[in-house]
Amino acid sequence: MAPVKVFGPVMSTNVARVVVCLEEVGAEYEMVDIDFKVMEHKSPEHLARNPFGQIPAFQDGDLLLFESRAISKYVLRKYKTEEVDLLREGDLAEAAMVDVWTEVDAQTYNPAISPIVYECLINPMMRGIPTNDKVVAESLEKLTKVLEVYEARLAKSKYLAGDFFSFADLNHFPYTFYFMGTPHAALFDSFPHVKAWWETIMARPAVQRMAAKMVPNKA
Amino acid sequence: MAPVKVFGPVMSTNVARVVVCLEEVGAEYEMVDIDFKVMEHKSPEHLARNPFGQIPAFQDGDLLLFESRAISKYVLRKYKTEEVDLLREGDLAEAAMVDVWTEVDAQTYNPAISPIVYECLINPMMRGIPTNDKVVAESLEKLTKVLEVYEARLAKSKYLAGDFFSFADLNHFPYTFYFMGTPHAALFDSFPHVKAWWETIMARPAVQRMAAKMVPNKA
Repeated sequence: MAPVKVFGPVMSTNVARVVVCLEEVGAEYEMVDIDFKVMEHKSPEHLARNPFGQIPAFQDGDLLLFESRAISKYVLRKYKTEEVDLLREGDLAEAAMVDVWTEVDAQTYNPAISPIVYECLINPMMRGIPTNDKVVAESLEKLTKVLEVYEARLAKSKYLAGDFFSFADLNHFPYTFYFMGTPHAALFDSFPHVKAWWETIMARPAVQRMAAKMVPNKA
Repeated sequence: MAPVKVFGPVMSTNVARVVVCLEEVGAEYEMVDIDFKVMEHKSPEHLARNPFGQIPAFQDGDLLLFESRAISKYVLRKYKTEEVDLLREGDLAEAAMVDVWTEVDAQTYNPAISPIVYECLINPMMRGIPTNDKVVAESLEKLTKVLEVYEARLAKSKYLAGDFFSFADLNHFPYTFYFMGTPHAALFDSFPHVKAWWETIMARPAVQRMAAKMVPNKA
């Protein structure tokens, strides 16, 4: 069987979300480059994969998918084993807690942390735009409040959805990984349970392999 | 068995998302008011339900949940029958398409349509804030582009995820319902397949019951 294909650069946080899931389940996959300079993301071939012309897109035989969380869940369901079951859909309450904290990442954590990553890394390093300190300060204030809730949660359970590692935790990887490369990484030191949780995630072999792909010169 | 409880006003779009799912599956439920005027959403009782102090929250026996999409999926799984299976998790490809278009609603459709609802209805009618016409114009332009993609999609399949009604369609109900009460409702007339899809959703008995709850004086 041909390996599944992921379209887009692995350095993109949304592409990385999909690829870290593939690494966790140990699936064979192929990365396919999309050349933004020649507008390949707006080509008929890519629009057939994703009608909004964005990345990532995904192919498994005849099945074409887009939206990183949807692709990730497909991957986690398809390659689920007794040992690697990151959605827990066999248990109503566990699946619900995975969904709750996956939504918290999407609706609350990401909107607080992502502007800091854009302002401190992506804008100055890749776009030649200076850091907007006001945006960073406001986002750090938001993120601090979010981390207070996470600290209380992670004082009660080892992982976000319960005492099991899940997709909810894994969703936090791409942005938090880049955040740790900004001058504000020490914010996590004030939240010992969050910090320990993050270190547990980073210690996973699949996550280590991803880190080496996302920042190749640091590997 | 005690009915499940939903905390928050049914007029809120995120509360309505949960309640329309309960109506679709025919579950017994109880609505519990949260008094924002006395800051009940920040009370210890409510923070135990939702540590971010937001609505909706949900209770089923000992299980406390928050985040409207997570609660909705719990409801759709728990009360799933042969006839009412809005997540299609028994079929890998169908479940993936439900997830794709549920994410499109969250990430692309809602950010385009919700500012129009806020500016044209919620701000002037409930907050005494005049409509910002620039925000409305920009959002209408965004929404038009989104609806172009939806039109192409719905020309190929009756519903967003395929030829079956699903959670992906239902997610579009709360904001689209309110949008149809703004002066810009006629935008949908330019998209015949989208318009027919919306009319099919509105014709569902569960959706009709919801509409009467959300705009009581129109029922």
